[in-house]
Amino acid sequence: MSKQFFMPTKVVMGNACILANSVLMAEMGKKALIVTGTNSAKKNGSLEDVISALKSNLQAYVIYDKVMANPTIECAYEGAAFAKENKVDFVIAIGGGSPMDAAKAIALLAKQDIPEENLFSYSYTSDVLPMAFVPTTAGTGSEVTQYSILTNHKAETKTSIASPFLFPKLAFLDAKYMAGLSYSTTINTAIDALSHSVEGMLSIRSNTITDSLALESIQLIASCFESLKLQTLTEKQRESLLYASTLGGMVIANTGTTAVHSMGYSLTYFKDIDHGRANGLLLAAFLAFVAESCPERIKTILASMELKNVDEFSKVMNGLLGEKETLTDNEIEKYVKLAMKTKNISNCTTIPKEEDLCKTFKVSFHKKGD
Amino acid sequence: MSKQFFMPTKVVMGNACILANSVLMAEMGKKALIVTGTNSAKKNGSLEDVISALKSNLQAYVIYDKVMANPTIECAYEGAAFAKENKVDFVIAIGGGSPMDAAKAIALLAKQDIPEENLFSYSYTSDVLPMAFVPTTAGTGSEVTQYSILTNHKAETKTSIASPFLFPKLAFLDAKYMAGLSYSTTINTAIDALSHSVEGMLSIRSNTITDSLALESIQLIASCFESLKLQTLTEKQRESLLYASTLGGMVIANTGTTAVHSMGYSLTYFKDIDHGRANGLLLAAFLAFVAESCPERIKTILASMELKNVDEFSKVMNGLLGEKETLTDNEIEKYVKLAMKTKNISNCTTIPKEEDLCKTFKVSFHKKGD
Repeated sequence: MSKQFFMPTKVVMGNACILANSVLMAEMGKKALIVTGTNSAKKNGSLEDVISALKSNLQAYVIYDKVMANPTIECAYEGAAFAKENKVDFVIAIGGGSPMDAAKAIALLAKQDIPEENLFSYSYTSDVLPMAFVPTTAGTGSEVTQYSILTNHKAETKTSIASPFLFPKLAFLDAKYMAGLSYSTTINTAIDALSHSVEGMLSIRSNTITDSLALESIQLIASCFESLKLQTLTEKQRESLLYASTLGGMVIANTGTTAVHSMGYSLTYFKDIDHGRANGLLLAAFLAFVAESCPERIKTILASMELKNVDEFSKVMNGLLGEKETLTDNEIEKYVKLAMKTKNISNCTTIPKEEDLCKTFKVSFHKKGD
Repeated sequence: MSKQFFMPTKVVMGNACILANSVLMAEMGKKALIVTGTNSAKKNGSLEDVISALKSNLQAYVIYDKVMANPTIECAYEGAAFAKENKVDFVIAIGGGSPMDAAKAIALLAKQDIPEENLFSYSYTSDVLPMAFVPTTAGTGSEVTQYSILTNHKAETKTSIASPFLFPKLAFLDAKYMAGLSYSTTINTAIDALSHSVEGMLSIRSNTITDSLALESIQLIASCFESLKLQTLTEKQRESLLYASTLGGMVIANTGTTAVHSMGYSLTYFKDIDHGRANGLLLAAFLAFVAESCPERIKTILASMELKNVDEFSKVMNGLLGEKETLTDNEIEKYVKLAMKTKNISNCTTIPKEEDLCKTFKVSFHKKGD
């Protein structure tokens, strides 16, 4: 099988990088649509920096700030209608995974008339509004991927639009926007990034390039485990987590995710468990499953975290995630069936069967004394 | 300072990857110009594979096979005239650094009328023929960079055209074309790649992303040191060297090279020393110079090769490069002055003065008993 690496987004990094590089947005058009959530971009300074940069370029803008957590298909169509109405030339996304993923769908739907029933299976063309992304959480890596993941009520899960035309043109990485993030969000998003890099290494599409990025990402996150738990992250560590999440995005842009994400989607959809937390709750048990067939690969992953075995990893995750949610046997059965239908399953180096996923859920949600 | 990572080339890897992915070339146009050297592409099977892929896409082609080692400005203009004459839609480069670098200049000059005196300082536009690259040596990394390095007789050195529009669209990495490469070429090109990754780590533009790629590249090359010396490379090791050279290209696309390349250009121009060999002859002495101010950085680089100090690295290089050429004091003085004029000098984390370059040359060409 041929393997590939493609990641055409220009990544700009460092303190005050938006203002220092506003010229890069100057060529994107006369009028921007800023896509964001209701609050955080206003509080953490990112919206202000983006607006200053646009003003220095004499560019106009309108703001669509209605993106909710786990954005819906309806939100994407509503944002696209707003983009068309306002005749914008490009899109700037500011926020976590939700505004970034919604912004990609909006940039696509603003240019291509795609019926809702074909949204996930359309033959997308390159006619998409150009995009600049400003992540304000360090988890999703959406700023360097071609995926727009939307909540799909019909399929009772999250479904992704994937197209090489959805890579943002630009990503600005400035960790100062994360300085005030709560530790619960910081931990959940860091674990989402960790999950991307670990799953990338367990994908049949992994290669030398994605492995080197994944291992660096895992190392950076592991170097913050203790400070995440003690809530003592330094500015430098916030930056490490941000770069780690972008590296993780570059990985999954090429490898895709695996069974952990397949299973996690149900936890988010039905139990409202945060996406990163959902993956984190399942990760150790899935590593234990893969270790049975690919012990060397798991050893490499654990070694990059300076851990000896899956048990040690499990303890780190439990320490970060705290008390677990409860699942009934019926829920597990339902989630396993939904996970088995996802494409991510066939992406695993060791393809799990229904009973393997069932065991992963049970081990993951097993409590002391159960 | 903001740092950047940009590398928009789609990299396709693995045995028979050209034929398996010929569809990726189908969208590039109706007629291709194949740019290559006189012989090697015909012998190693790469030209045949490219032609088969074009035929399967019903694409026409013409061949320009006059690229010499260290291609000249004249060669670029001649190739571009041939491209225009034949009304080609895209360019396929097959070969080592020379055909690949020439192909970029040809793809540019086929579309933009640039007077020779402005070739290196022109405001290039995006109007460049799309390019697909097939490296048949594992050294330059040109398949994933925006540089076209040409021999510039007026400046008595090599000069590079650098433009984001010169990134190839596609790179096909198939190590089987390297199976018959002589060990002298294999060693020289491997050391060129090593130099790219090491210099990338000593550039002021290095960042988390380039460092992770550079360290992987250095590790891969170091894992082949013994087999390079004993001339016992396996197929798998040939592949490691190829991937290492592409990783090195991704690094210098973002960091640029440093003083080693500045100095090496004169060795190639005046003494006809192969480009990779020229860098290799200078590398240990330059690491010793940087180690005085940045010991930790050098330690990280050496550790990724499992070496303890610069002396051990010097021994490895000497073992691979064999007997050294001779330089007179006058030659050294001249080369130092030329090197000081290059942009690469200001790219170094520790900026060398004239006397530092002079010492680097002297230590590098010092012989036992001198």
